[in-house]
Amino acid sequence: MAEVIDKTALFEFLCRMGDNTLILGHRVSEWCGHAPVLEEDIALANTALDLIGQTQLWLGYAAEVEGKGRTADDLAFLRDAWDFRNVLMVELPNGDFGQTLMRQFLFDAWQVVMLGWLKASADVRVAEIAEKASKEVAYHLDRSRGTVIGLGDGTEESHQRMQRALERLWPYVGEMFASDHVDDAMEAAGIAPDPKGLRADYDAIVLAALGEATLSVPEGDFHHTGGRDGRMHTEHLGHILCTMQWLQRAYPGAKW
Amino acid sequence: MAEVIDKTALFEFLCRMGDNTLILGHRVSEWCGHAPVLEEDIALANTALDLIGQTQLWLGYAAEVEGKGRTADDLAFLRDAWDFRNVLMVELPNGDFGQTLMRQFLFDAWQVVMLGWLKASADVRVAEIAEKASKEVAYHLDRSRGTVIGLGDGTEESHQRMQRALERLWPYVGEMFASDHVDDAMEAAGIAPDPKGLRADYDAIVLAALGEATLSVPEGDFHHTGGRDGRMHTEHLGHILCTMQWLQRAYPGAKW
Repeated sequence: MAEVIDKTALFEFLCRMGDNTLILGHRVSEWCGHAPVLEEDIALANTALDLIGQTQLWLGYAAEVEGKGRTADDLAFLRDAWDFRNVLMVELPNGDFGQTLMRQFLFDAWQVVMLGWLKASADVRVAEIAEKASKEVAYHLDRSRGTVIGLGDGTEESHQRMQRALERLWPYVGEMFASDHVDDAMEAAGIAPDPKGLRADYDAIVLAALGEATLSVPEGDFHHTGGRDGRMHTEHLGHILCTMQWLQRAYPGAKW
Repeated sequence: MAEVIDKTALFEFLCRMGDNTLILGHRVSEWCGHAPVLEEDIALANTALDLIGQTQLWLGYAAEVEGKGRTADDLAFLRDAWDFRNVLMVELPNGDFGQTLMRQFLFDAWQVVMLGWLKASADVRVAEIAEKASKEVAYHLDRSRGTVIGLGDGTEESHQRMQRALERLWPYVGEMFASDHVDDAMEAAGIAPDPKGLRADYDAIVLAALGEATLSVPEGDFHHTGGRDGRMHTEHLGHILCTMQWLQRAYPGAKW
């Protein structure tokens, strides 16, 4: 690890990790009580809980690094949209069950390769969080991969829905592998990888599964950006924050 | 007017009036930019603005009567769900365009007869607000009545949608004519009528239009209650408040 760590860049990196899991966890939790079968309902609720649990670790460490007395809760519930650093894909509305599971798969596969790298991070705290989270995430990927294959190579209706989901979500995949000065600083310090370098491992997982699912990967390499660098989120993030933050906003400092 | 006015009951009555217009105004505003034709989009946005304008008058007077230093804005943006006194119908999701206009018609007709009475209220401030609002509301009713008739007696598809809308909304009409100790106090003071006494005039307007629209009024007189007395709102109110109140909650005392 470099002698002098860029604390601002580390804070930014940790927010990116924690905001991804926070916003996706919140989105997935919307399925609670609404999934098509009980087993899936419970699985989705557990996935959401895992993601929120990971958020506590990422944002908790982010708050420590920042050193301004904020907590993980403060970062989650008292920042406004422009301070969020999640990729755009996780803030998109759930769509149907197929679209939710396709997004989960595309995100799980990214988490698996990213956390796989971070387990060897030069920052011990990052490595510990990655070690803990990667066990849960391996299980998430196992489930979402199975569902994508089952529904993709299923009925005519389920196949069409999964193909539509893939076409809707594919343009959001690229943002997970974008890199900027924050990533440069993390890479130089040995804390995190250049995301671009993870793409080959990601494609190996994803393309194999999509092939087995008889789904066609959309052509072209355009992708949406603006979430992970906070430049511009979709209109959906503000609505998520309204719901997610209302209690802490209405009752500041509320304790259970 | 009675010598001693029950201020608590008057405050409650004014909140009922203002919360109806606030919540319906907020709901109708959701159509802004989404209505099927420009003319309707502008008409709905104007209706929403009128309703919010009426809210300022009702809740402004309510805040004065309460005498605790709160303003109309405080009542709108800093109360929680259990303190809202709107009827349940206005907090229901918009549904399709037909359902939105059917609700508007059912509410407009109630407002017309209620404000018609209130123009002669023993409370001069109430009479003044009713005088001003009734001009706008007469126009709202004219429009919503025309749309209900046009779509009800329209195509097979539009007729079916309007019939479904009526069946969905009819069980919420009765709450507008419920009465309790607040209404008794208002009636005794000559400030407002017993709502039950307005039903005949309401039915004259509504049943004639529904007949012209070739729609069948659902049978039975069951109706949902709990909104105007704050006993129990639907799950939808909390979601409305999350969106509506977020800015004032996140930035307390924000000024333009």
